[in-house]
Amino acid sequence: MRALVKTAPGTGMVLQDVPRPRCGPSDVLIRVHHAGVCGTDLHIWEWDSWASGRMKPPVTIGHEFAGEIAELGDEAQREGLLAVGDLVTAEGHIVCGHCLQCRTGNAHLCQRTQIIGVDRDGAFADYIAMPASNVMKLDGIPTHVGAVMDPMGNAVHTVLEGGEVSGSTVFVLGCGPIGCFAVGVARAAGASLVIASDLNDRRLALARAMGAHATLNPDRDDVVARVRELTGGDGADLVCEMSGHPVGHAQAFAAARMGGRVNMLGTPSRTTEVNFARDVIFKGLTLYGVTGRKMYTTWHQMGRFLRGGDLNPEPVITHRFPLERIADAIAVIKDGTAGKVILEIGA
Amino acid sequence: MRALVKTAPGTGMVLQDVPRPRCGPSDVLIRVHHAGVCGTDLHIWEWDSWASGRMKPPVTIGHEFAGEIAELGDEAQREGLLAVGDLVTAEGHIVCGHCLQCRTGNAHLCQRTQIIGVDRDGAFADYIAMPASNVMKLDGIPTHVGAVMDPMGNAVHTVLEGGEVSGSTVFVLGCGPIGCFAVGVARAAGASLVIASDLNDRRLALARAMGAHATLNPDRDDVVARVRELTGGDGADLVCEMSGHPVGHAQAFAAARMGGRVNMLGTPSRTTEVNFARDVIFKGLTLYGVTGRKMYTTWHQMGRFLRGGDLNPEPVITHRFPLERIADAIAVIKDGTAGKVILEIGA
Amino acid sequence: MRALVKTAPGTGMVLQDVPRPRCGPSDVLIRVHHAGVCGTDLHIWEWDSWASGRMKPPVTIGHEFAGEIAELGDEAQREGLLAVGDLVTAEGHIVCGHCLQCRTGNAHLCQRTQIIGVDRDGAFADYIAMPASNVMKLDGIPTHVGAVMDPMGNAVHTVLEGGEVSGSTVFVLGCGPIGCFAVGVARAAGASLVIASDLNDRRLALARAMGAHATLNPDRDDVVARVRELTGGDGADLVCEMSGHPVGHAQAFAAARMGGRVNMLGTPSRTTEVNFARDVIFKGLTLYGVTGRKMYTTWHQMGRFLRGGDLNPEPVITHRFPLERIADAIAVIKDGTAGKVILEIGA
Amino acid sequence: MRALVKTAPGTGMVLQDVPRPRCGPSDVLIRVHHAGVCGTDLHIWEWDSWASGRMKPPVTIGHEFAGEIAELGDEAQREGLLAVGDLVTAEGHIVCGHCLQCRTGNAHLCQRTQIIGVDRDGAFADYIAMPASNVMKLDGIPTHVGAVMDPMGNAVHTVLEGGEVSGSTVFVLGCGPIGCFAVGVARAAGASLVIASDLNDRRLALARAMGAHATLNPDRDDVVARVRELTGGDGADLVCEMSGHPVGHAQAFAAARMGGRVNMLGTPSRTTEVNFARDVIFKGLTLYGVTGRKMYTTWHQMGRFLRGGDLNPEPVITHRFPLERIADAIAVIKDGTAGKVILEIGA
Repeated sequence: MRALVKTAPGTGMVLQDVPRPRCGPSDVLIRVHHAGVCGTDLHIWEWDSWASGRMKPPVTIGHEFAGEIAELGDEAQREGLLAVGDLVTAEGHIVCGHCLQCRTGNAHLCQRTQIIGVDRDGAFADYIAMPASNVMKLDGIPTHVGAVMDPMGNAVHTVLEGGEVSGSTVFVLGCGPIGCFAVGVARAAGASLVIASDLNDRRLALARAMGAHATLNPDRDDVVARVRELTGGDGADLVCEMSGHPVGHAQAFAAARMGGRVNMLGTPSRTTEVNFARDVIFKGLTLYGVTGRKMYTTWHQMGRFLRGGDLNPEPVITHRFPLERIADAIAVIKDGTAGKVILEIGA
Repeated sequence: MRALVKTAPGTGMVLQDVPRPRCGPSDVLIRVHHAGVCGTDLHIWEWDSWASGRMKPPVTIGHEFAGEIAELGDEAQREGLLAVGDLVTAEGHIVCGHCLQCRTGNAHLCQRTQIIGVDRDGAFADYIAMPASNVMKLDGIPTHVGAVMDPMGNAVHTVLEGGEVSGSTVFVLGCGPIGCFAVGVARAAGASLVIASDLNDRRLALARAMGAHATLNPDRDDVVARVRELTGGDGADLVCEMSGHPVGHAQAFAAARMGGRVNMLGTPSRTTEVNFARDVIFKGLTLYGVTGRKMYTTWHQMGRFLRGGDLNPEPVITHRFPLERIADAIAVIKDGTAGKVILEIGA
Repeated sequence: MRALVKTAPGTGMVLQDVPRPRCGPSDVLIRVHHAGVCGTDLHIWEWDSWASGRMKPPVTIGHEFAGEIAELGDEAQREGLLAVGDLVTAEGHIVCGHCLQCRTGNAHLCQRTQIIGVDRDGAFADYIAMPASNVMKLDGIPTHVGAVMDPMGNAVHTVLEGGEVSGSTVFVLGCGPIGCFAVGVARAAGASLVIASDLNDRRLALARAMGAHATLNPDRDDVVARVRELTGGDGADLVCEMSGHPVGHAQAFAAARMGGRVNMLGTPSRTTEVNFARDVIFKGLTLYGVTGRKMYTTWHQMGRFLRGGDLNPEPVITHRFPLERIADAIAVIKDGTAGKVILEIGA
Repeated sequence: MRALVKTAPGTGMVLQDVPRPRCGPSDVLIRVHHAGVCGTDLHIWEWDSWASGRMKPPVTIGHEFAGEIAELGDEAQREGLLAVGDLVTAEGHIVCGHCLQCRTGNAHLCQRTQIIGVDRDGAFADYIAMPASNVMKLDGIPTHVGAVMDPMGNAVHTVLEGGEVSGSTVFVLGCGPIGCFAVGVARAAGASLVIASDLNDRRLALARAMGAHATLNPDRDDVVARVRELTGGDGADLVCEMSGHPVGHAQAFAAARMGGRVNMLGTPSRTTEVNFARDVIFKGLTLYGVTGRKMYTTWHQMGRFLRGGDLNPEPVITHRFPLERIADAIAVIKDGTAGKVILEIGA
């Protein structure tokens, strides 16, 4: 079968013929229809310090996907809950199931996590084998949407963690694809006011298309002052920090209301100087670090939003390429013109 | 000033001239613009066993209202947060502030609660004096809506208590005014599916106007089977029990999903035979009794829904009468043709 | 190997030689050291309507146990987290892992649950095969304690569900083995006051041994009045209803404080007449039906209490018998003289 | 009456005769028996930049106290819940009651908070007037303990915020008086393991007296490695950061387990460089800033721990001085030899 493989240290990926993966007794073999391209894939393409420190080529890339079940292992079959032909997506973090985190509702923080497309073969290929426990039926969600449920799930986790979002004010700081998804999730979840900021006006247009009541551009707007103004002087109940930048952190802490919450998803590449007395302690703030998706509450909530029609991620999906045009996919991500980019692999 | 007074045991109320209430140092005197008429007022009018057991005439009736601040006590003034001319509504439960319940976030369950219009003079009058701590500014919400925030708050409490309603399935059983409000609140709060049932098709039409995705009439529908079908076989995450009837209780327990929740607001006039093993224990169900409004989280959430435009209670307000036509107001409530009925008192 | 088998409909069980169970790829084969005898086993012995309605003989009985890993399936081995020789116990509810309940933290309510010793072969045998995911290492807890972690887990679930037990007042109504465990768990969890009631003074003595501050016998005490008195007039924050009897339910609802909670574990054999208006709605009460153990938060918390030394279940374990004396074990349970009864099977 | 007054900018305080405070209609006049001396009082004594930036002399100092009700305002009297002669303590943060924070259970974060002894006259005096709503009966707690319930409440807030402490592992970083109280609170609340660290061995001895299972001194111990070791490699569920120092912050983040929590009470005097990617996001950590005491859940929980006998703060109270020896009280706090220091004022 075809697979996009990081064959060796260095830039790029290679489309090559590889054997179809073996389907173990508890596994499901999935024929990939669509796959999402992520910032992580860009890091891998460019072989930055994170990628070179973590990965051991050769590895098939890709961790966001949806497709059709082609084969079931014996044990997966015996359960009778999945069948050949089912359209499915899957959680790409494969966890141990036995550690403290796995045993207490925090499997997304399992220290033995293996990520597909990073630590083991991934989904930019005609087929991928996944543990049946990680697989979820799409039940009416189309595969090109199923292919972006991994990053959309990051947004769901960021927006819904830590309290009632219904009737609250939400500030999404950073409007890459996950930030745009977060805007849509906050609206679907019943937030009364959703404000989004980004330096890129194209992204702000996507945020508006996803339902942002107001958008701010730090080049033109005093972001903190505007958030305060739009929230009647209080500041936002919830800030979704998607930028990962020290400037974003400072804005996030300042824009949150007394007793508010900052859920941090954007991955910083450097440290941030924090005034804990002023920004956290005297404000009674809660900061929370978002990793992955809650297994599997996040997926359940996301399915509800999508199937109920309250969340429509289509505006964020701006580009589609066939598998062999991975270089073009990487390029549009890199130049910041893209929302979410999808690879069309099978059908 | 004019006041509708329960002057003595027996049916009816009397519109009479009474002295304007005294405004104590911590009080606010409010010129009433609009007031809501409630099922409780019907009980008082008819002087049923509940009313005769609890009330000590003469009492001015009415506990749902909104109006304009006419005077501030010394201490209320010193705080500087309220001013003459402010349009306001108020929580009608006046609590002690010192008991276990008041001290731990359950003031709505204070055992020393005094309800206006029941235990002390109420709002079917030109003026009412309220403790400043019970008063909330309308900040843009019109007074005819402010006048129904008390029962709407019951609905908010019923829908939002006990977990994330965002993305959930909600079954509202009983579509009187509070049930209809509950439908609207569930939609505003981000429920993915809202089902409503009632025996009265007029009320079901109101529920649809408030955003119910599906309505059921037990005369025509197998309610439990239909809820199950509409929820993919699971049953509803949350059932709002607004009927207070043993048949409603049975439907509520059966329609809730495994691990679901039944929030009970409808006040039963008799006991219910419960199969706890089958309906509660093996289902892992949670039942919760709803009294009043959370002080003041409920009011805050409701204000957000109303000001943000996600909740519009207007369809439920079907009748308006001047103060002197109280008998007509009581009559439309009694015959079941009304949604919410409002008295127009001042301006 | 030896196994206690329900060979056919009717009273009793038969100790017979059966083949050692097959250890599937995801399974662990466990040499049983100790097993607990449960009220459920009494129902099965007596073949009451519940047992005859659910079970399909022949089935090896027993669902509470601990022992030593004798063999690992290929997949269980590959994980590297369990090893031959490890002392372990296991959750006896085997769930599907794919349904709404399993996917959202309520696997204990999976509708496809198979219970060992009821729906498939159990632990009153020299060996039992369990899915590796259900198995937990004892890490220092002795196997005779491990053998009662299933019912102790019911107690942990009952005491810890629904809010902070630290500093609260807990009333345990019914002091069978799980009630006695609940007393110990409430003390370990930091409850400030633990009251226990039962009609059997022998059981009250066990409750005192487990740390109850006060014990009540309805034959001598006005239970509700005494609970109220001991809690400064408020009633208990949490009532653990372990009796399953309508009289117990009435006491539970009356003894809970305004805004309190009744967690119901005792399985009723009949219906209960409930005054929802007085006992639930106007009290703002929460009722919760307890099934099984939270997977696996309950097990984690229990392990902490046991290993930390704050919970010592030994006083409750009143009898030990070898496997062949099952009839004696059943007899002491039936006559109400026993706390927890253990079978000594291997070593 | 006598009062310790900050009469003007500059070092020190003056014991002088001042008029007895007026008791307003909603107030309670309290004869002070005991008062606690706090680090804040040291800042005020030394007139550091915080003190000079916030305070407007003359102000009577002191915010931790307990005493006896000497007089009740008219409205306070009418409530009938407090009486002359009652022994009481009081929350020293006087809040507006009307803002978003006050209305939604976060009154401790009210932006209009007035702190007694800082923003208005305090308790280092024979009498203090307090709003009745801030006053709580001691109901058996002695006044010298009541006098330290303000800082003990900080500890309760720090330990209990954010999840079940029952059965958890707690690391208290910094063993000043509030850290030592936190150790005792964690034990009373059912923590399975409590570890404490400080550079001062005298304080570690107090922490042990309060129930710490293990104490660490960074001069001798690799704190993070030891916490990890003592928690079976996982790290602590909850870290109470009481040091306010960047080194403490780094240890706190590193010592918390994946998915754990760091509740920050120690007030930093400078910024901290934070590696959010490594320490917060990839760890799924929650940081929370602790201000004051939850009104009044914290007080309720603390009362339960004290009255139930599970929390005994006596070991922390190391020094007692009469009011006129305030300079000695300040001196023992400054040189780090003291636990909690109390002024004996009345009787």
